[in-house]
Amino acid sequence: MNQTIEFSLATDFYELTMMQGYFFKSPEERGIFEMFFRKQPFNGGYTVFAGMQPFLDVIEGLSFSDKDINYLDSLKIFSREFLDFLAGFKFRGDIYSMKEGALVFPGEPLVRVHGTMMETQLIESILLNFINFQSLIATKTARIVDKSGRSPVLEFGLRRAQGIDGSISATRAAYIGGASSTSNTLAGKLFNIPVSGTMAHSWVMSFSTEIESFEKYVELYPDNAVLLVDTFDTLRSGIPNAITVFNKIRHTKPALMGVRIDSGDLEYLSKKSRQMFDEAGLEEVKIFVSSDIDEWIIKQLNDSNAPIDAWGVGTRLVTGGNDPALTGVYKIVAKENGSRLEPCIKISNQSEKITNPGSKNVLRFYDKDGQMLADLIYLESEHDELMARVTGKEPIRFNHPSTNYAMFTMDQYDSALTLLQPVMKNGKITCERPGLPEIRQNREREIASIDETCRRLLNPHIYRISLSDSLKDLKTNLIKDIKGNFL
Amino acid sequence: MNQTIEFSLATDFYELTMMQGYFFKSPEERGIFEMFFRKQPFNGGYTVFAGMQPFLDVIEGLSFSDKDINYLDSLKIFSREFLDFLAGFKFRGDIYSMKEGALVFPGEPLVRVHGTMMETQLIESILLNFINFQSLIATKTARIVDKSGRSPVLEFGLRRAQGIDGSISATRAAYIGGASSTSNTLAGKLFNIPVSGTMAHSWVMSFSTEIESFEKYVELYPDNAVLLVDTFDTLRSGIPNAITVFNKIRHTKPALMGVRIDSGDLEYLSKKSRQMFDEAGLEEVKIFVSSDIDEWIIKQLNDSNAPIDAWGVGTRLVTGGNDPALTGVYKIVAKENGSRLEPCIKISNQSEKITNPGSKNVLRFYDKDGQMLADLIYLESEHDELMARVTGKEPIRFNHPSTNYAMFTMDQYDSALTLLQPVMKNGKITCERPGLPEIRQNREREIASIDETCRRLLNPHIYRISLSDSLKDLKTNLIKDIKGNFL
Repeated sequence: MNQTIEFSLATDFYELTMMQGYFFKSPEERGIFEMFFRKQPFNGGYTVFAGMQPFLDVIEGLSFSDKDINYLDSLKIFSREFLDFLAGFKFRGDIYSMKEGALVFPGEPLVRVHGTMMETQLIESILLNFINFQSLIATKTARIVDKSGRSPVLEFGLRRAQGIDGSISATRAAYIGGASSTSNTLAGKLFNIPVSGTMAHSWVMSFSTEIESFEKYVELYPDNAVLLVDTFDTLRSGIPNAITVFNKIRHTKPALMGVRIDSGDLEYLSKKSRQMFDEAGLEEVKIFVSSDIDEWIIKQLNDSNAPIDAWGVGTRLVTGGNDPALTGVYKIVAKENGSRLEPCIKISNQSEKITNPGSKNVLRFYDKDGQMLADLIYLESEHDELMARVTGKEPIRFNHPSTNYAMFTMDQYDSALTLLQPVMKNGKITCERPGLPEIRQNREREIASIDETCRRLLNPHIYRISLSDSLKDLKTNLIKDIKGNFL
Repeated sequence: MNQTIEFSLATDFYELTMMQGYFFKSPEERGIFEMFFRKQPFNGGYTVFAGMQPFLDVIEGLSFSDKDINYLDSLKIFSREFLDFLAGFKFRGDIYSMKEGALVFPGEPLVRVHGTMMETQLIESILLNFINFQSLIATKTARIVDKSGRSPVLEFGLRRAQGIDGSISATRAAYIGGASSTSNTLAGKLFNIPVSGTMAHSWVMSFSTEIESFEKYVELYPDNAVLLVDTFDTLRSGIPNAITVFNKIRHTKPALMGVRIDSGDLEYLSKKSRQMFDEAGLEEVKIFVSSDIDEWIIKQLNDSNAPIDAWGVGTRLVTGGNDPALTGVYKIVAKENGSRLEPCIKISNQSEKITNPGSKNVLRFYDKDGQMLADLIYLESEHDELMARVTGKEPIRFNHPSTNYAMFTMDQYDSALTLLQPVMKNGKITCERPGLPEIRQNREREIASIDETCRRLLNPHIYRISLSDSLKDLKTNLIKDIKGNFL
């Protein structure tokens, strides 16, 4: 059985009611929106941007079917005129975006959308859903892979994922983040990601004896002989039986002989198992572990020199564990006023919820070794002037995004790159479409270019994100203007 | 644009490799599997069972397309014979299940599957994915709704959900759990759930002034006039502007006048706002709040008598917050041996991971007021004898599921119900298909029938789940037999 997700209605209802409002107010009125987030997930030092390509595919093909229109009509809140408009709707805006696999930071515009208020508003929910979730999982996986050293991370999350698509999207993001393979066969097929798996306890239990189940398995899959050893007792039954079986097949030089330990104290059991294999002359047998693994547990096991060759990671990788959402938001930054797009700002009662006004981009500064130094958020209108200064390697002032008087001058840099690039024009995808392996390499390069103190799990070094002078001035003036109205 | 999820390959790869193993070993060999979980999510007192109907629909229609078979063939691990078998595969097993909306507890069989080893193994990942996630969200929502009193809970989770389907499934489960409406238009259409929404900050900011945005909105939606008041300053701008607008339309008696507060201290702002409305003679204006709400925050705000009329709950409801997975597992409990199905057990190195052997069911005992007293897990083979005892209201021994010597006699009860009921026979759905409103009522009745101390958020009273004498004896004997092999 198949299930079809129709993305047109996969939108918050208020997007449609507001859209109808804009339709009657002035359907051609234009605006600019930006997506950003306020806080790193996992109290970490970076976020890996992901989810853009699938989002663009959805937006390029977005349209409302007759059934969608009939459903909306049945709610008795939309006018015939508006529904007729929706029936012919296509997204025709422009989108600028970070690259998938890029490291991104709080407050930075990740995606910028230009278009009519109607179309920019409509795509909010889908954009946030795709980018928030895939970035969360790419980040979680990158953290896990960063601590796993050279041992591969196998993603096993389907059974604990949040819905089937929760698993499919997670698998794509996990691959970007550095997972080596997935257990999810469908995701393997869709994205051409290697699939892998060992065996379940039920396999072992379906035989009269554990050793018979092992013998039968290696006979069937001689080149993927990974045996689950904890059904009865890892050290007294599983490992001795595995040794017996491996000793029999060893002369055939199987591509992989290994065991998976899925319960108990993984440091103790892996060390004892290693010792037993080594004493039996089976140095080539690999030890896989699974059982509520995350980056903290991997780090601890590696710090203790647990002899683990591969990590099976499920629940905490595909859900994000105790931080199950990147809380990205999508805010209007400029709106049409007469003939021009005028910057606008949201103030709120919480100062951390004040937005940065205007259409913006990000410049990332590098030293001569290609290491990231700091990012500057600036107004698109400053672009040419700033780039001229960068070319001349002139000093540039960096202002703290919220703390007054905190600033520094960037003067020792080698180069700077503009991070937001056009990806869609008039509703058509214009960017290159790198494959997943390329996006994955991009993530790897990015992680290698940030200071390693930013990769620390506990209290990581905070990478500097600053505002340009012009952006800071604009923000200050807009706040003064608005506060003047009621303070 | 639509996306089609083909469920046949939405399975862990090892299910397919094990399936091929069973295919060559003895394709007709039968087994019985049960799904259960070990730990209540959210450190709570109960779990609401959900996800069964969509799962059954998938299983009834499960088949492999030519493309699926070609993909599997390309992996060069499956034989032609097995792939031909898969091409004609249909699930023909029997399934027994808890009712959706039922309260369930650790260790209880929630779902029992009878069939060939091949078919029972194949459906593991899909079953766990559906039941784990929907039960998690139904439970989270039930906890939130339980603390929200008579004020409705509006589900707003799409933008933070784990994938689009993560949102759709979550919306179904949230409705079962007691949410009043969803912001997810697609889920509203698919499940006939009321959709609702207010406005975004962008609506307010797209006008020259806040009051103009409010005026325009109430003109458009006079019967759903909920105004977002925190774009600039809730008490100095939003509420005064809302008062002005409501005073103008009040005489038309709108169906709903309200405001939504989306940031700041919700207790302080709701109390001050209430006071301002009341002083303006606008007692009928309702106060909605949103902003990282969960059951703990609702309880605290209600304990402080914050005058809140409706709760918009997003991220923490649709993801489960810091507990993003119900960790249900699916284990073999009996396997064919000669002409009979013989109970089997998994022991492991962690005593909490020892399974309960044999094909089982659950009896729930009630007092004369219909209040739940305790649940007894028993062997299907004991069914007739136990039911005879229940009819005669004879005392029945309850044994603690793991602690030795902890037992009690159930003698003061009025009735007992068998919880697992047949839902699929030979691959065809045989159960009634209650609509979501009926499932939702079932959840409501169940929550009303458990002692209220089990509904406490902090250290809830543990509802008693016990083993029958025969089950306990079987478990003890099987452990002895197996340990005898290697201890």
